[in-house]
Amino acid sequence: MNSVWPRILIVGAGWAGFILSQQLDDSKYDITIIAPHQTFAYTPLLASAATGLFFSRLAEEPIRRAHRRMTYYRALATAADLDQKSVTCIPSILQPGGRDIPDANHPFTVDYDILIIAPGCVNQTFNTPGATEHCFFLKTVPDAEAIKAKLLSLLEVASLPTTSPERAKELLHIAVVGGGPTGVELSAELTDLFSEMSKTYPHLAGLPSITIHDVAPEILGVFHQKLKAHALRSFRKHGVEVKTNSHIEKIEEDALYTKEDGRIPVGMVAWATGNRQCDFVESLHGLSKATRLGRILTDQRLRALKEDQSVLENVYALGDAADIFGNGLPTTAEVAVQKAEYLVNTLNRRIGQVKQLGWLGDPEAWDGQGHGGGQV
Amino acid sequence: MNSVWPRILIVGAGWAGFILSQQLDDSKYDITIIAPHQTFAYTPLLASAATGLFFSRLAEEPIRRAHRRMTYYRALATAADLDQKSVTCIPSILQPGGRDIPDANHPFTVDYDILIIAPGCVNQTFNTPGATEHCFFLKTVPDAEAIKAKLLSLLEVASLPTTSPERAKELLHIAVVGGGPTGVELSAELTDLFSEMSKTYPHLAGLPSITIHDVAPEILGVFHQKLKAHALRSFRKHGVEVKTNSHIEKIEEDALYTKEDGRIPVGMVAWATGNRQCDFVESLHGLSKATRLGRILTDQRLRALKEDQSVLENVYALGDAADIFGNGLPTTAEVAVQKAEYLVNTLNRRIGQVKQLGWLGDPEAWDGQGHGGGQV
Repeated sequence: MNSVWPRILIVGAGWAGFILSQQLDDSKYDITIIAPHQTFAYTPLLASAATGLFFSRLAEEPIRRAHRRMTYYRALATAADLDQKSVTCIPSILQPGGRDIPDANHPFTVDYDILIIAPGCVNQTFNTPGATEHCFFLKTVPDAEAIKAKLLSLLEVASLPTTSPERAKELLHIAVVGGGPTGVELSAELTDLFSEMSKTYPHLAGLPSITIHDVAPEILGVFHQKLKAHALRSFRKHGVEVKTNSHIEKIEEDALYTKEDGRIPVGMVAWATGNRQCDFVESLHGLSKATRLGRILTDQRLRALKEDQSVLENVYALGDAADIFGNGLPTTAEVAVQKAEYLVNTLNRRIGQVKQLGWLGDPEAWDGQGHGGGQV
Repeated sequence: MNSVWPRILIVGAGWAGFILSQQLDDSKYDITIIAPHQTFAYTPLLASAATGLFFSRLAEEPIRRAHRRMTYYRALATAADLDQKSVTCIPSILQPGGRDIPDANHPFTVDYDILIIAPGCVNQTFNTPGATEHCFFLKTVPDAEAIKAKLLSLLEVASLPTTSPERAKELLHIAVVGGGPTGVELSAELTDLFSEMSKTYPHLAGLPSITIHDVAPEILGVFHQKLKAHALRSFRKHGVEVKTNSHIEKIEEDALYTKEDGRIPVGMVAWATGNRQCDFVESLHGLSKATRLGRILTDQRLRALKEDQSVLENVYALGDAADIFGNGLPTTAEVAVQKAEYLVNTLNRRIGQVKQLGWLGDPEAWDGQGHGGGQV
């Protein structure tokens, strides 16, 4: 499809991609965004949503917006041809129960003039046997919904007359793997949930328990000592057990196995051991990538760098999938948002120049940056 | 388990069972309620919840309540021994995606002194091939959630570049089987939804369509002529096609077949052709039942009648599963609520007499009704 406006393709609708999709000037660009789930998730609210503090709908916002000139495809990017300027996608079909299943049989391509790569990361399971099948994750609103439904189910099954108190204790033992911020937040919310639930499930009093497992010698590794001490104090007070130096060997439906303790019966394993790059980012060749996490390296203007560190014109990368060469920043929402806002400014201003230059159908003609124009 | 209080077992948590479970005097009775889903559904709100007018959580209320002395089992009654005064149940386990799957491998029994039968009805499919597997129903909140998710999925799939406009038209064709109040309400909500969606899915303009099928010569059979005319006028205005005298032959995943039109491609079939008794009610022997629908017949005091029309002491039946002998009333929420409130009054007052009589552990001793006591 040819367009009279420069075609921006945004891959991903996390903090970076969503802000770009909503704030880029839709009267000057043809904006297309692809993401496998049709809402943007307010990630810091997911732990509360998962434990039922509020409707999970409040933790998400639809990507589609009325009266905005923008195309959204519910799809997953699988490959890009950076020379031909096109991205291959497969539909992501919502299944009963809120899960998104990629439909590899119906691929399609989207051509772009400007590509913005912001698919975020996926869950890092270190190939632990059973983790993908049996663990609960906390990256998306459907993830939070699944945790909530599982917790409710555990409480109800534990309440049945066919369930012995010993079995109920096992069912209400929640293991959280990963003592980073996600695991710690979720554990804190779980203590709140169980304390609240003691009013409606008084017969289960004393049975629920939470254990945090971390392979490291301490939880919240990168955070300030004072914060760690506070978390540990609070967990001790609420009976959350913290198992550091714990090596997970495999996960089954109703148990996890560690090198140190062998089989531990559980009702649910929540897995939050961090990120790895998604297959799409891994599939991108010819780009410079960071050693740690394989993040796409960009220059200070968020332009993707080729393997020889030269700029790949009209390809930007940000969010957890990218990092600035020589100026590394953590994989946080704050960084993603600031970069997205910078890029919105750049691109919305750049198009002013396009008009000045008169766009000729050749993307390079309106790319002030590529020609040393007076760009920000 | 022996109890010092009379044990009331309520089967079902619809309008009748829920009110009883919440309003019976929990300081005087041991109350147990069993129902396969842990919330009560405000049934008239389900059509709106299904089309996303509001959070479906607003259309339901938890059966469990803090600080109420009551036992709830998430289970399905499968059989009753009316002589031994016990009900056999199987757990109803919440699955990922909100569906409840009965677990026949772990049955248990609940003994009672007073049994209240109010399980409602299940969907009547007339054994239409494919209906159970492929149709969407509208009896519970999970049903409403499933419809909402399916509609969203259809809109997104129809928006993909791999979907032709012809295919999109088929995907966005919703067939509603049954022109009773549920089918009519849902169709009306669907027209609202599609009208609202035209703002966020402008590229799908003109593609959605709704058809109501009914085997009868007109829709809303039992309602007033004026109401029927209004519904038809409104449907005509909003482009809803009404196919009366339409005989459904089978349902497939993406099509329905009628005797009159053959194969009709659809995105979704919503099925609302009415009720049949649940397996539990069908399994109850020795009770008097109505010819139509097989409802348990009761006397004016809602006491179940034996086959010889004599009263079965301490067994009450109400809601859609029951009807008063010689004084039939429709299967509506209004009737269920009024009967539930009458029974709450009766039973809460009766227990006063129990105290007067001094209860001896034999339910008959405190049953004023059975002994001609000065009962309401």
